[in-house]
Amino acid sequence: MTDRSLEVRLASRPAGEPEAANFDVVETDMPSAGEGQALVRNVYMSVDPYMRGRMRDIKSYTPPFQIGKALDGGAVGVVEESNSDALAPGDLVSSRFGWRSHFAAPAVEIQKIDTHGAPLSAFLGVLGMPGMTAYVGLLDIGEPKEGETVFVSAAAGAVGSLVGQIAKIKGCRAVGSAGSADKVAHLVYDAAFDYHGDLNRNLADTCPDGIDVYFENVGGPTLEAVFLHMNMFGRIPVCGMIAHYNDKEPRPGPKTLISIIPKRLKMQGFIVSDHMDRRADFVRDVAGWIAEGKVTYRETIVSGLEKAPEAFMGLFRGENTGKMVVQISDDPTK
Amino acid sequence: MTDRSLEVRLASRPAGEPEAANFDVVETDMPSAGEGQALVRNVYMSVDPYMRGRMRDIKSYTPPFQIGKALDGGAVGVVEESNSDALAPGDLVSSRFGWRSHFAAPAVEIQKIDTHGAPLSAFLGVLGMPGMTAYVGLLDIGEPKEGETVFVSAAAGAVGSLVGQIAKIKGCRAVGSAGSADKVAHLVYDAAFDYHGDLNRNLADTCPDGIDVYFENVGGPTLEAVFLHMNMFGRIPVCGMIAHYNDKEPRPGPKTLISIIPKRLKMQGFIVSDHMDRRADFVRDVAGWIAEGKVTYRETIVSGLEKAPEAFMGLFRGENTGKMVVQISDDPTK
Repeated sequence: MTDRSLEVRLASRPAGEPEAANFDVVETDMPSAGEGQALVRNVYMSVDPYMRGRMRDIKSYTPPFQIGKALDGGAVGVVEESNSDALAPGDLVSSRFGWRSHFAAPAVEIQKIDTHGAPLSAFLGVLGMPGMTAYVGLLDIGEPKEGETVFVSAAAGAVGSLVGQIAKIKGCRAVGSAGSADKVAHLVYDAAFDYHGDLNRNLADTCPDGIDVYFENVGGPTLEAVFLHMNMFGRIPVCGMIAHYNDKEPRPGPKTLISIIPKRLKMQGFIVSDHMDRRADFVRDVAGWIAEGKVTYRETIVSGLEKAPEAFMGLFRGENTGKMVVQISDDPTK
Repeated sequence: MTDRSLEVRLASRPAGEPEAANFDVVETDMPSAGEGQALVRNVYMSVDPYMRGRMRDIKSYTPPFQIGKALDGGAVGVVEESNSDALAPGDLVSSRFGWRSHFAAPAVEIQKIDTHGAPLSAFLGVLGMPGMTAYVGLLDIGEPKEGETVFVSAAAGAVGSLVGQIAKIKGCRAVGSAGSADKVAHLVYDAAFDYHGDLNRNLADTCPDGIDVYFENVGGPTLEAVFLHMNMFGRIPVCGMIAHYNDKEPRPGPKTLISIIPKRLKMQGFIVSDHMDRRADFVRDVAGWIAEGKVTYRETIVSGLEKAPEAFMGLFRGENTGKMVVQISDDPTK
């Protein structure tokens, strides 16, 4: 333990794709735990596409990041000092205080983790918010039925890779698209293709019975093509539209949207934090499926807090396979 | 009764806006009722925007009209001859055999009407398919709650004019848009505006608490603007997108569609014929509301079957207020 702490601040708001100059890595005094607080050393932090939205100065479902202040986001770490009965030194915890090496916060804002033997980093991915996003989006919004076809874009990502596996567990045909031949080759799906090819042809070939549930992560040309292949009464849980996040000006929506009427489609946006009542079901099911070998997952781990901006920028260039995680300090479980 | 019958046929498929040359009005032999059939004289027929879709040669929820064949659609009339125990001469009936002066069909394809004292033409509008479209779209798909704001486009049309009145009955603020100052002035809504003005400004002024339910009839710039005013967890029942029906090439969707995610919106297409289990509820409720004076309605009646193409074309130029109806022969209830 040193007496200095490191944090990543928003230096300026990105115009279009984020770049290194939008971030500052700054050394600060080590925080100290006040009454009812704990001091935590972060071990891993998450970088996620949704953070791009928070870099804009607009009202959304979470407040925008402030220029000159540390960013935040999901992190897991270990308690170093505690002035609360709820936490003890050595406890493994998750929090929203990512993008910094250490933090002090009230114990009520810090969740103790029982790893059930799973690696600590998994609690940022398959057993964390991305995993739960896949779980509630597919099961509660998409409502897949046995024998249906589920199509997932960004299928190699932290969310998408779990969606397809849950779809298969539920007896569906799982089809995914991803951004490179290598990613496609590693997908645990029934069929998959590279979205750079002929979308229409690829959807026709891989979804011969049409699409009943489209788990939407990307927007853009994929969504436009998918409407043509949706079946009657299909469902489209809208998790993200990453293709649009760096647009300087909003781009037009899909020309094919009108098919929502004759096909009686339901398209519904959702945010995982509205569904926290499903957390116990989620952890029980997914931890169980991992233990049974029915769910596997991949991570891309980048080392060093100072590499966090680069890891974040890499999300928009498709540099991750599975969950993109930044390791900040030594993992005490390894 | 004459020995000649008249019917309107599709002469050619419209490219863009339909024109007179796309229709043929043809005299034919009077049909005769076979075993189990009835001969019906049509009194009123319906022209509806959805018919434009059936003039395209593409698979949709109803088969396309065939060139050289009579068009069809909703009609009400009176039985002239019957070879079925289910129907007797003089019975008032509704059917799908519009666009012709007479028809013979199996009795099972003809529904007897008990008017409950309402005018016969109402069974093509407020007590027919358009009325039921308003009823199931608003109540079952839109799920309005007391105190919410319901915005309706094409609010002066056959469907829209009823949506706003039901919204008010359910304790909502009803706001509508329509295509002329005259139409706006006649709307039985809490607030209304002409869509030719500044959509964004008008929505802000008339929906100061935002929009909870948008009953979508038009698509185009209205839908794009509405997304900016939708409240969290808003619902968008998609009934139609009349602004797009005459497009020769599909036009882009709304730039604002991405707000479906942070606002957790649900957008859902529907077709009234999927909801026939609600017919008894619909007739009971709406007939009751009419009797209580809580629902009023307007019709635009065009006289003469040969004017039906013109009446249909008028829908796309906004020439109707309320339900557009074509009178084909004398109304026996008047």
